[in-house]
Amino acid sequence: MQFDSLDDIRAFCRDLTDGDAPAADAAFRRQQTLTKPPGSLGRLEELAIWLAQWQGREIPKLERVAIAVFAGNHGVAARGVSAYPPTVTEQMVTNFANGGAAINQIAKLAGAELCVTAIELEHPTRDFTAAPAMDIDEYLAAVDIGYRAAPVDCDLLAVGEMGIANTTTAAMLCAALLGGGAVPWAGRGTGVDDCGMARKRATIEAALDFHRAILGDPLHVAAALGGRELAAIAGAVLAARARRIPVLLDGFVATAAVVPLTRLNAGILKHCKAAHVSAESGHRALLRELGLAPLLDLDMRLGEASGAGVAILLLRAALACHTGMATFSEARVSGPDE
Amino acid sequence: MQFDSLDDIRAFCRDLTDGDAPAADAAFRRQQTLTKPPGSLGRLEELAIWLAQWQGREIPKLERVAIAVFAGNHGVAARGVSAYPPTVTEQMVTNFANGGAAINQIAKLAGAELCVTAIELEHPTRDFTAAPAMDIDEYLAAVDIGYRAAPVDCDLLAVGEMGIANTTTAAMLCAALLGGGAVPWAGRGTGVDDCGMARKRATIEAALDFHRAILGDPLHVAAALGGRELAAIAGAVLAARARRIPVLLDGFVATAAVVPLTRLNAGILKHCKAAHVSAESGHRALLRELGLAPLLDLDMRLGEASGAGVAILLLRAALACHTGMATFSEARVSGPDE
Repeated sequence: MQFDSLDDIRAFCRDLTDGDAPAADAAFRRQQTLTKPPGSLGRLEELAIWLAQWQGREIPKLERVAIAVFAGNHGVAARGVSAYPPTVTEQMVTNFANGGAAINQIAKLAGAELCVTAIELEHPTRDFTAAPAMDIDEYLAAVDIGYRAAPVDCDLLAVGEMGIANTTTAAMLCAALLGGGAVPWAGRGTGVDDCGMARKRATIEAALDFHRAILGDPLHVAAALGGRELAAIAGAVLAARARRIPVLLDGFVATAAVVPLTRLNAGILKHCKAAHVSAESGHRALLRELGLAPLLDLDMRLGEASGAGVAILLLRAALACHTGMATFSEARVSGPDE
Repeated sequence: MQFDSLDDIRAFCRDLTDGDAPAADAAFRRQQTLTKPPGSLGRLEELAIWLAQWQGREIPKLERVAIAVFAGNHGVAARGVSAYPPTVTEQMVTNFANGGAAINQIAKLAGAELCVTAIELEHPTRDFTAAPAMDIDEYLAAVDIGYRAAPVDCDLLAVGEMGIANTTTAAMLCAALLGGGAVPWAGRGTGVDDCGMARKRATIEAALDFHRAILGDPLHVAAALGGRELAAIAGAVLAARARRIPVLLDGFVATAAVVPLTRLNAGILKHCKAAHVSAESGHRALLRELGLAPLLDLDMRLGEASGAGVAILLLRAALACHTGMATFSEARVSGPDE
């Protein structure tokens, strides 16, 4: 196990290493020489420099790009908070294996390896309105699965999830750690109706009350009010930080999964970009809360790393310009006021 | 010549054919069967259906994708409205030919053919503060160049431009046809300083006054206050409409280029999507005015079809999902409440 206790995670988050500032500076300077007005490629320039910073080289690469999708089941699904039955989690994992899901098509297009990790689907977490979803050992085991699933050697990692009822779990973590009650965080998920929405909100409010004694401890919250796939995402994000691998976070659930880490160290997401802002209603507020500017805003709300997968294409565009463009002097193009 | 007179263009814009509604309906129905909650791919679904509508088939394709970049020079550059000298237009055309510009890298990544058309760079349009930029014959010739440059047989066309001082021309067309004076439309372009901005605004205001007699006629405005590469973009957009080819409009200049057409028929842009919203200050307001929702918002402001080129990647993602995903029944995934 990478982390034998919650204190191990806390210690990791206290002592973060940053990216490679000289590599980022070199990438920035390179951008100034390319045949375009400085800054005119906007966020594509930001992305190239960010890749350089975390990969530690002026000319980053995207040869090995990995998409990690974690799947889990949720006891809280029994509360009728989702439009789909919990069996769909496993059915979709099979669909991933057979290449039929959206993320399979997107991963192929983006030149990324897709790695799906199903975590004890036959053992849903406990319904957190009446018990901790996971005990500490179960939580640490899920974090460890994510930590180990992150490739040791890759140029970019995109993280996402699958789990019926997990927008309830994600909203739960936000409500527990960021406040505001259920309303700002509970959305329609896969498309729950008005009655389901009411149940979703009531479930979150009930759990806030039941677990009020632990709300001040982010990692206890992550265990008692989280989910296995969310814990695994947190583990993968920590592994990527240790290995200086830049990370694309997918949608609302993937972002909520790292909220507990941000309560330990606000700088934990420096190696992460928000791939997109989901149509799931709480995501925009969550990104604002975390200071993350999403790369895409396409009304997507599928999860399974689909938004992160699409954002890989933007990184490829950023890298293609960064590496392939001529400089002003190579192309004999005049600069300003020459 | 496709259009021998302004009346020919007016007649074309009166009699527009629409896309293929049954193909769009079939694509919509197909989306409902794929293994995802309905609508959860957001704008990727919209894009697949839009491609189907204009290509006239439930399963569209993106085998032949073309990027057309038009370049022109502007007499108004002599007013000191740009940060770069006018010689850069031709230098950048050479850079395109040599493969050194941003759009070369993006086109290659997006699997698109790049076709650059330089239009009489040695004959800039006249300075429109004191004369019509083009007479009607010059304008029609430029429209024709664009019309003929659009491929007869392609699956998608992206249009963009290069032309030092052409954000002034673009702002000019917006101010002339949409009102509000210079301020809402004149931006920093390639990065003009405060003095240059003041000159840019004053230039536009002076031209509005000089040409006040023709401001009610969109095509006379397009000639007298436009530019050759903007007229060519309008021509290419008309050709694409005639051939039912879907179009991605690049940034502020490419969008401003079609404003005169929208004054003839508000439905002229149904076959077009705004690829992105540029950081150029007038673009967001212009898109709102035209009812276009940009696909990307990446602070890009380079022109040369760079934003449209990146948006091709989104269309490829949309198409990959539309064509490659399994249906609920194929994958044996349960639907809602099963």
